[in-house]
Amino acid sequence: MRVLRVAAVSPEVVLGDVDGNVERVAEAVAAAAARGASLIVAPELALSGYVFIDAAEARSAALDRHDGRFDRLRAAVPEGATVVVGYAEATPGALFNTAAVFTRSGVLAHYRKSHLWGIEKNVFEAGDTAGVVVETPVGCLGVAICYDNEFPEVPRRLALAGAEVLALPVNWPVVARPAGEHPPEIIQAMAAARSSRLATVVADRRGEERGVAWTAGSAVIDGDGWIAAHPDGSHVAMSDLDIPTRGDKRLPPHNDLFADRRPALY
Amino acid sequence: MRVLRVAAVSPEVVLGDVDGNVERVAEAVAAAAARGASLIVAPELALSGYVFIDAAEARSAALDRHDGRFDRLRAAVPEGATVVVGYAEATPGALFNTAAVFTRSGVLAHYRKSHLWGIEKNVFEAGDTAGVVVETPVGCLGVAICYDNEFPEVPRRLALAGAEVLALPVNWPVVARPAGEHPPEIIQAMAAARSSRLATVVADRRGEERGVAWTAGSAVIDGDGWIAAHPDGSHVAMSDLDIPTRGDKRLPPHNDLFADRRPALY
Repeated sequence: MRVLRVAAVSPEVVLGDVDGNVERVAEAVAAAAARGASLIVAPELALSGYVFIDAAEARSAALDRHDGRFDRLRAAVPEGATVVVGYAEATPGALFNTAAVFTRSGVLAHYRKSHLWGIEKNVFEAGDTAGVVVETPVGCLGVAICYDNEFPEVPRRLALAGAEVLALPVNWPVVARPAGEHPPEIIQAMAAARSSRLATVVADRRGEERGVAWTAGSAVIDGDGWIAAHPDGSHVAMSDLDIPTRGDKRLPPHNDLFADRRPALY
Repeated sequence: MRVLRVAAVSPEVVLGDVDGNVERVAEAVAAAAARGASLIVAPELALSGYVFIDAAEARSAALDRHDGRFDRLRAAVPEGATVVVGYAEATPGALFNTAAVFTRSGVLAHYRKSHLWGIEKNVFEAGDTAGVVVETPVGCLGVAICYDNEFPEVPRRLALAGAEVLALPVNWPVVARPAGEHPPEIIQAMAAARSSRLATVVADRRGEERGVAWTAGSAVIDGDGWIAAHPDGSHVAMSDLDIPTRGDKRLPPHNDLFADRRPALY
């Protein structure tokens, strides 16, 4: 068992203002790192905004993987920490809804969302993996984006592949829910966390954009599926997570969440 | 879209008093049917009780599939209704934690729990399917038992196989949870329901047995994953569920919970 301080940040995101968004994300990352967080997650498409009218507008706010502005973000990260930030990724022929995983030293992975929501289908191509696992300085990290996690196969697959924590950048539009209930996407993330003992760091948007109100659902969910932190006054959800020895899914005295699976039957 | 009135019943269960349990389950089924329910679910091991000391004691409270006491249960069911009841099933060489699915006319299926919890492993053999789907007078019914449903593969598999509603007999011992939260197993059932638009009828125990306190977590969960009914004063959770056309998993205007899956990636 080890303790990992994690943070979901939610800086202001301005649609299309890439330089400004890079600066605000970098500041939020530096502030969370100064509070001791070593895994820091920012929202989906945090460098671009979300509510594009069409692909041309999205392209104007998209970055190449090798864009120098990632250097500005990396410079905000202390040694030993790992950051996940969503951005619109441009290739010559396509756009992707991508999350970059990086440290001060370099970019470890770019994960392209593979389950596209709503009119994202008109703008982005879908990626070809269902989430990704990345070895990082803070451990084996699972990464998925928003609607990906509503497919229970995704967090399950990542946990089985060794993920110790899931970084989940999202943009959750507010949806109706009964009084007293969590947002439905949180319930799904809680259940996925508990099923696989996969602590999850959700970084959501707040405020609104072109009439879309965001849920402000950032949360840290522990490996038992309970909410360890909601956003504080600075829009940061931060908590110290107990991370078990890798692969330890025991439920003493008689059970084990993974050994009790019956994969031949699924 | 059609409307289906469902009920989870939770009559008193007395450990080892099979004849009395049969009578109390029959009375609860008849009472729910009189209130218009056409799918009625009773708890896991409702005919035997749960907290056995050993296999010999469980065997003394177990029934053969062809036991005449199922006739008493069937007689309590009106034409057109379907009932799911958990019992300890005895074969010459083994015991199973089984749910019988029956109508007035006959028994449609016996499902043997395939994910065993705790010391069940010392008493029961595990079944060889991960839940089951059964065509019934109330539609295509999924059946799983308790710990089965904490494996997200199970409700997902049943929904993909055509289940329109999931009957979930359980015995949930009370576990600690943060103030204001649902029992964790309910959160998992809510998430599974929402992921697959699979309304779920949970029938839990209440009271206690040999020092084990039950959660009394019976609930009807609708296809959006929200709780449509908790137990009333007669320990019955009853609701009218909107059941979509079979296989309709659309999320207008752009999404579809099943068509959006990427099975090649899981």
